[in-house]
Amino acid sequence: MKLYDCQMAPNPRRARIFLHEKNVDVEKIEHNILGGDNLKETYLKINPWGTLPALELDDGTIIREAPAIFRYIEATNPEPNLLGNNPKEAAEIEAWERFSELQGMGAIGEFFRNQMEGLSGRGLPGPASLEQIPALVERGKKRAAWYYEQIDQRLGESEYIGSDRYTAADITAQCAIDFANAVGLPTPETCTNIARWHKAVSARPSAAA
Amino acid sequence: MKLYDCQMAPNPRRARIFLHEKNVDVEKIEHNILGGDNLKETYLKINPWGTLPALELDDGTIIREAPAIFRYIEATNPEPNLLGNNPKEAAEIEAWERFSELQGMGAIGEFFRNQMEGLSGRGLPGPASLEQIPALVERGKKRAAWYYEQIDQRLGESEYIGSDRYTAADITAQCAIDFANAVGLPTPETCTNIARWHKAVSARPSAAA
Repeated sequence: MKLYDCQMAPNPRRARIFLHEKNVDVEKIEHNILGGDNLKETYLKINPWGTLPALELDDGTIIREAPAIFRYIEATNPEPNLLGNNPKEAAEIEAWERFSELQGMGAIGEFFRNQMEGLSGRGLPGPASLEQIPALVERGKKRAAWYYEQIDQRLGESEYIGSDRYTAADITAQCAIDFANAVGLPTPETCTNIARWHKAVSARPSAAA
Repeated sequence: MKLYDCQMAPNPRRARIFLHEKNVDVEKIEHNILGGDNLKETYLKINPWGTLPALELDDGTIIREAPAIFRYIEATNPEPNLLGNNPKEAAEIEAWERFSELQGMGAIGEFFRNQMEGLSGRGLPGPASLEQIPALVERGKKRAAWYYEQIDQRLGESEYIGSDRYTAADITAQCAIDFANAVGLPTPETCTNIARWHKAVSARPSAAA
């Protein structure tokens, strides 16, 4: 299998961490998003949506989008379980996964993309040309503060985000929060539950994937 | 089980259609989003995110977010299968589901929420107060055009969106597109594949759920 990857971007990192936790080795093909590699004809033939990551199976099937890669790898490599051992746990992980995707990644993405010089005309991931909207920088900041607050509260009640153990919900939050820290939305010092959890997830070998 | 519902909103409709396809009967408790029912103290105690739908199980467990409700119902009521019969199909359905959620619902939501009078200060779902941003009305329109184009192309290659049969990927697209039509982003007449598929999905008894 091959992973169409981008080292600096949070969604490909979700896939790399998931694969590492599953102990599944894949060839990685780097694409620089800031350089526009993902919008070149060669990549759009692989994934017309122009998004990374994508996983190419040995039979040539392309699986796009991090959560779809999660789904495929979990089904073909069930252990360790990362998407839920029973219906309730699976639903709780899914809800938190989606929360980190829409509210976390969404907030940080709009903060970052709408001010980054190299992303002019690319206000959202994908091939559509969308102008940057400065008001989204402020909105992203405000949304990220709310996201941090919700995650910190959750981690005051539960050791991990989606369950009492490390799951896909932690992977997505970890990638969102590390990305936020990297682009200028640092975790507030008041979020002591996040700090405790972040230390634990960052100590896992997969964090370096 | 009880579904915290809102008749006019596209995400609760996803849950209603899914439950209908599974032949699972639940009590529905209507919440008017435009009237702010979802931001009242009583509802925030059920779901602090302030979003609809949420499913309450008989033991009091709350499952938030349409895709998490899908996951729980599929695991407890496997037939008819709506989330994939094998790893590749499950991944393909997940990818298209997410595409309709982020690119379809996302586009239509920003077009609608940023101009609707009753939603002033509520530029995104949930309890955070976020001002409307007029530039997002135009962006939403442009994004919706790209979404329609991608879905029409897909439906030129495949009878249904996520697979060769009706699945959750169709439910989410159906709810996104019907919502778009309701709020002033009609399906372009050139999208003849969407028209063919839309007629088929709308004829299913679940469409009225």
